[in-house]
Formats: sequence, structure tokens, C-alpha cells
Amino acid sequence: MSRPSSRIDSVIHAVRSRISSRLDGPGSRLPSVRTQATTMGVSVSTVVEAYERLAAEGVIAARAGSGFYVTGPAAPLALAEMEPRLDRAVDPLWVSRQSLETPPGHLKPGCGWMPSDWLYHDGLRRGLRRMARADAAHLVDYAGPLGLPALRQTLQRRAATLGIEASMEQLLLAESGTHAVDLICRFLLKPGDCVLVDDPSYFNYHAMLKAHQVQAIGVPYTHTGPDLEVFASALQEHAPRLYITNAGLHNPTGAVLSATTAHRLLGLAERSELIIIEDDIFADFELRPAPRLAALDGLSRVIHVGSFSKAISAASRCGYIAARPDWIEALTDLKLATSFGGGHLAAHLMQIALTDSGYRRHMQAVRTRLADARKHTLRQVQKLGITPWLQPEAGLFLWCQLPDGRDASAVARLCLREGVVVAPGNAFSQSQKAADYVRFNVSQCQDPKIWQVLGKALATNAPRSHA
Amino acid sequence: MSRPSSRIDSVIHAVRSRISSRLDGPGSRLPSVRTQATTMGVSVSTVVEAYERLAAEGVIAARAGSGFYVTGPAAPLALAEMEPRLDRAVDPLWVSRQSLETPPGHLKPGCGWMPSDWLYHDGLRRGLRRMARADAAHLVDYAGPLGLPALRQTLQRRAATLGIEASMEQLLLAESGTHAVDLICRFLLKPGDCVLVDDPSYFNYHAMLKAHQVQAIGVPYTHTGPDLEVFASALQEHAPRLYITNAGLHNPTGAVLSATTAHRLLGLAERSELIIIEDDIFADFELRPAPRLAALDGLSRVIHVGSFSKAISAASRCGYIAARPDWIEALTDLKLATSFGGGHLAAHLMQIALTDSGYRRHMQAVRTRLADARKHTLRQVQKLGITPWLQPEAGLFLWCQLPDGRDASAVARLCLREGVVVAPGNAFSQSQKAADYVRFNVSQCQDPKIWQVLGKALATNAPRSHA
Repeated sequence: MSRPSSRIDSVIHAVRSRISSRLDGPGSRLPSVRTQATTMGVSVSTVVEAYERLAAEGVIAARAGSGFYVTGPAAPLALAEMEPRLDRAVDPLWVSRQSLETPPGHLKPGCGWMPSDWLYHDGLRRGLRRMARADAAHLVDYAGPLGLPALRQTLQRRAATLGIEASMEQLLLAESGTHAVDLICRFLLKPGDCVLVDDPSYFNYHAMLKAHQVQAIGVPYTHTGPDLEVFASALQEHAPRLYITNAGLHNPTGAVLSATTAHRLLGLAERSELIIIEDDIFADFELRPAPRLAALDGLSRVIHVGSFSKAISAASRCGYIAARPDWIEALTDLKLATSFGGGHLAAHLMQIALTDSGYRRHMQAVRTRLADARKHTLRQVQKLGITPWLQPEAGLFLWCQLPDGRDASAVARLCLREGVVVAPGNAFSQSQKAADYVRFNVSQCQDPKIWQVLGKALATNAPRSHA
Repeated sequence: MSRPSSRIDSVIHAVRSRISSRLDGPGSRLPSVRTQATTMGVSVSTVVEAYERLAAEGVIAARAGSGFYVTGPAAPLALAEMEPRLDRAVDPLWVSRQSLETPPGHLKPGCGWMPSDWLYHDGLRRGLRRMARADAAHLVDYAGPLGLPALRQTLQRRAATLGIEASMEQLLLAESGTHAVDLICRFLLKPGDCVLVDDPSYFNYHAMLKAHQVQAIGVPYTHTGPDLEVFASALQEHAPRLYITNAGLHNPTGAVLSATTAHRLLGLAERSELIIIEDDIFADFELRPAPRLAALDGLSRVIHVGSFSKAISAASRCGYIAARPDWIEALTDLKLATSFGGGHLAAHLMQIALTDSGYRRHMQAVRTRLADARKHTLRQVQKLGITPWLQPEAGLFLWCQLPDGRDASAVARLCLREGVVVAPGNAFSQSQKAADYVRFNVSQCQDPKIWQVLGKALATNAPRSHA
């Protein structure tokens, strides 16, 4: 005997079939509940529930006193969201949009995140089940202005392990790490200001700074942090208000700041009234923590931000800001004015995931898995004559130079036609000096098709002429 | 026999007790796993799990090869987040922060949302359980640039019922309704621009426009929409770029736009190249839909935005924008640059809630409940000599005038001392001409203490001198 839910489904299926086969067009009246029940040999309440569900979906609609009618047919999904845009220029948003828009089945060695089964979906599932039993207030209410206290307390403890002492009033939750950086930029910058970024650096900083109408100045990144001579001259020449960088593992190079560079960099910042945003999005990927500028500085001119989109989930978004209390107060007002409450449920899920006893083991396994994937990717790129700029100790990325000055944008376009999203170097480079570089995400480099397609693209794309 | 989970809990409890009683201070070494297991008569794996959980919370930490140690004690929760700020000036953020910061037990007749048990927590619970069984990709991946197609399809059908025809490429998901309006402001406005708002209007528009460094000009709101004579002169005098208003039920007055006003207003906008944002946050509260400017205009110069924070959940945030395709394309790039992917999980939950067969019944019950609460609140305010500006047909709000020109900010401060958050009129008024008005949220007006406290405050607060 079929269960009630499958009887409801069969009524739904029957109605849908008549609509999709055009037996019932828009405006057609459905059989009455009683007639339908008799015809299909089910109870009246089964038909009521089926009609209610179809009405909730908008497939049919009730008219007072006269039953249910078929509404207009749904528009087909737009082609635009099923196909990558081959014609888009390689601008700072190129990699984001290609990675986000690719249809299932595309390979994404250039994207910035891990495959979904590498993230902490088990922790999320436990969190979702726990939240399903939580008080109504946790499910439907706005968060307080600073965000969920329990999560902020967890973040406080995590920061302390990196030597960053933050009081509870120095921690503000944001919708995401990107939102955190954006809020700070809105607070600190005005159009025309100068901002230093690493060259190369995370392409979305460039897109964001463009949205703020400020001038981004690239400072070459070395194996131990930004080139301090260039940094010092840029301070002199441009009097920048802000420097945005990664804490720990640098995106896209995988390099880390050395203690010496950190101390000297902060000294330069102090003498020039420069403010620094340190984006700690890859914190849990490090094998041993690099020095944090926020720890040296005591959250005076350094603002520490982060999120868990890379380690736990990018679907349940939650970021944070640790900064001076007076800045947090101003940022809180700005957050309320421009996004109001914040995702309280996402903060609860993040708090559950971070304090779950499985999370430490999960990240341990991820780090091991990444080490293997890194070795594998290094072997594959070297076979194609591609040279890693650095062999990083941890993290997702390999920053690599293509052989013989090949143009990475052209190679990326060729690969995209074959269903492989590659991240061309100039998307990361403010100075556009990384035309022959690409960023690989080792967690997305398992499929042998990647190397076939890339090899073919390298062969097709003639080397640029040399001097 | 106790279950494993309660044995784990008893180990956790034992460790916590020793820490809180200061038997084990920061830095103390915990008994080894084996010793603890023997002492407490539990298995080694039980102690391992308990220690892991405490370590995940940061209460204790593992040191390689030498066991577990007590970390520093957690800082107490900041007082600032447990107490309302009595000294804060009544600015556009006053009501938000007071409402969001009040400790449990405070009454909030002035806040903008319903009590948690009036929202759709049952639908959320069903959604959470369903998502707990979903594919990993739904739990951890970024959304596509426009956001979850299934939800956008649902929004498309909902818009169509209001006469708004939007293709799938004309619908963009945002983090919240506030985020939607903010994105549009970033796209359209530059510092120094003029923007028309209703006077009174939702206070957070004022805070947001301040953040955009634009000049907000208030146009008096009548029982059928903005005062069109003042609107026309404001167009002449200030050449505003944008007008922000509510679709359907107006906040704070509960008035609705008449068909005649809608048509004439749109005519004025067309002749002046004015763009209009219509914020449809209270759509599901209407008994019968008021005319939508976006429907008349065909999404040419009108941008339609909305969210479900008021009807379903403010904790799982999700907003949307319907606009011209070229504007959606630009807004999508701006969204990626400033907040990247968006809360995919929240979009899934909203899609499940909106297509749940119980949602229609839920909102029907809410509308009935609000009608009763409105009657009750009207009786109570009238007993205190408070006069409603309008008796709205639907929605949460009553916009009311205090007797004898009493100052609502002073009354609000007195009430706050007694644990009652009142929303003073000038928080909503660009012209500051609503000093003797307050906004009541009828769903938050059940407790008789509200009327006692308010009555006392009105008696204490001497009437202002009259001319």
C-alpha cells in the first residue's frame, strides 16, 4: 500500500502531466477536489494537499468559490545561466563569473574553492538538524547589532591562539569575508583615495576597489611578503590610506609573511598612518601559523577579518571583523544602515560547526588531502613545462608560469571552450605583469582531462615573440 | 544505564566544574585520557570525545605529545550587549539599535518585526530538516551570480500575480531587502545626489542614504501616496536621481498607494528621468494587492525589491531585485565585487518555505491575528488619548499622534528606562515634523505593561508650550 505522501505526489504528477502535455493550458479549470479524488481513488484531503502544494508553487491558483485554475506556464531557465560567457573580457570578475556560472561537468582548476565533498558538509548537516529543533527565536529573529555572542566568543578564542587579543566589543560579524572588507572600505575610503594591494593578489579586491572608485597600487609580492622597498616608495609617492593583504597563506601565491617582513612592514605603516586589512580566510589551512600583523599591532591600525567559506561552507555565509572598539562601533552602525541584521541562522550554523568535535579532524584530513593533491598537481604542471613560482607548504594554490611567455588569457579562453576554467594571471595582477601566469587550485586538479585540454591549448597557442 | 552521549557530557561537566571552581586554572594539565577514564568509570573513547569537544570550544587545548591543558578563561559577555544605550541620540538608527539590543524581557511595541512565534518557524524547521539531507553541493557551494534559479522562478511567479512581468534574467537575489536597496544605491548614486523619500518613511532609508552621502528630501505622505504637488515641485527644485518608497503597505503609516496616484506619480517620474525603488517587503500582509509601480511601468524605470524577513524569517536572510536586464547585469557584477556569492543555503530555505503548502495558511492566520491585534491596539491607544493618523486595513503598523503635542523622543526615553522600546516619530521623518508621533507595531502590543508604562510616561512628560 502506498504511503500518503506518495498518493499526494501521484495527484501532483497527474496535474503536471496534463499541463506539460498541453491537455490543460493556462486558465483551464482543474477537476473539483471531489471529482479528482473519485477519479484517482484517493481521499479528498490528499487532493486538497496536492492542490495546495501546486498552488504554493504557483502552477495553479485558487479563485474564490470557483476552484483551481492553471496559471501561465513557467518560463524556461535562461540560457545565460547555463552557459559560460566566452566573450567576456578578462577583467577582475572574469574568474569569479566563469567559476560560478559553469554548468555541471565543467572542470575548474582555476576556481578559488574546494570541491563540495571536501568541505565540512557533515558538520553542516549536524548543525541543520540541531537548528531544526532550536527555539523559534533562533530561526526567525534578527541578530543583535554585533552578531551572535556565542560565535563571537569562539572567534575570540580562535584569535587568541594566533596572538590576537580582542575583547567581545572588538568583534563584529558580517555576512561574509568579502562583506567585511567592503564595510571597512566604505568606512575608511573616499573616491580618489589610494590603496595598496599585493601584486599579484586576490582578484576580487581589485573589483571591490573599483566599486569604491579608489586607485589600487600593486606592490610586488615576494616569497616572504610584499617587497618592502617598493612598499616604502609607494607610501612616499601615493600616501595610501589602506593596504589590503592576506593573513597567513597568500592568494594566489601560497607564500607567507616572514616575521622580519611583518615587523618592518608594520613599522612603515606606523610612520605613515597607514591602515591595514589582514584577510585571514585561509587560517585553518596552515600547518603552522605565520605571524599575524594584528597580533604584532594589538589591533590598533591593523583590522583582522576572516570567514569560513573555504573551510566549512560557502553556502552558509558568515564573516567577521576584529578591530579597535571605536571603529567597530562605527562599522556596526554602517552594517545596520546597509544590510541591517545579518544572517543569524548562518552564524548559528558556523558556531555549531566550529565547536563540533569533528571539525579539527576534518581540517586535519583536508590538509593531508591538499598535500597529496599539491604533489600530484606539481607533477602534472611540470610535465607540461609549467613552472611553479613557489612550492607552498599549505593551502589550495599553486602560482605558475606558462612556458615560453604564452598568453594565459588566450590559453584560458581555449580551455573554457573545452569545459575547463583556468585562472589567468592578469586577473590577479594590478600591474598586468602576470600575462604568462596562471593560478591552480590543487583540490580541483584531479581530473586528467585538465592536463589534456591544457596541453592542447599550450600547443595551439603560439609563443609570443621574444626580444 | 546511561547513554554514551550523557557519559560524554558528564566528563565535560567534570572538567568544566574544576575550571569554574578554579581547581584547574589556565595552564593546568588535565588528567590523561586513561587516568580520567579510570577515575570516572567510563571508556577511553568517551574521554577522548569529551576532550575533543572541549578543545573544539577552546576551553582546553592539546599540546603535541603532552596531553591537554586548560586555556585562559573566557571573557564575560560585554555589558554593552546586554543593556540598551539610554544615552544614544534619537537618530535614524535609534529604533534599530534599541530594538536589536534590548535584553530578553523588554517589550518592543516600537520594533519593526513580529514576535518570533508569529513567523514561519515551522516552515523553517521543515526546510532545515530537508536541507540536512540535501546534496553536499547545496550545503557548501557558492550560488551562481544571480542566485538560486528555483527561487528566482518562484519569485517570477509571485511577481506575475502582482502584474509584474520579469524574465529570469531580470531577477537577482541579494542578502536581504536592505542589501538589495543598498546595491541599487551604489549602482545609481554618487555623493551629493538628491533622493526623494516619503515623509515619514522607514528610518533605515535615512541611515542608508546618509552612508551614501546623498541628500534625502522628504515628500509628505498622504492616505493615498506621496503628496503629488510637493513631489512635482521637488522634482523641479532638486532634480533628484531616485525616489525610494514602499510597494503596497507603507511603513510607518500603513497607507497604500491609490491607482490614480500611482499613474500620476509614474507620469511625473517619466517626464523627469526619475528612477524609483519600490520596496515590497510587506507583500504577503496585504488583504488585496495595491497597485505596483513596477507593474504599471513594466520594469523600465521602476526597480522592484523585496524580502521575506517580515513574513518568514529574519534569521535566514534573502532579498531580491527585479529590474531592467542591463541594470541587473551591472548589479550582479557589483554584488560579486562587494559580497561575492550570496547565502545559497538561505535561498534554499526560502524557496522551501515559499513553496511549502503550509505557507499560504500561515499567512492567512497571521493576517487574521494582526486584524485582532490592530483592534486591540487601537482601543488601548485611544484610551490614552493617542490618535491614529489612519486605521490601516492590513500590516503591522499604526502611526499615531500623542496628545497635546507631547515630545515622543522624551516619552520614548522614559519608556526605555522601564523596559519598553517605543519608536519616536522623528526617527521616521526627514523634515523632523513628526515630533509628537509614534509608530506602534500591533503584533508587539499584547502586554498590558506597555500601556501602563506609556500612560505613566505621558503623564510625566509635560505638554510642550503652545502658541
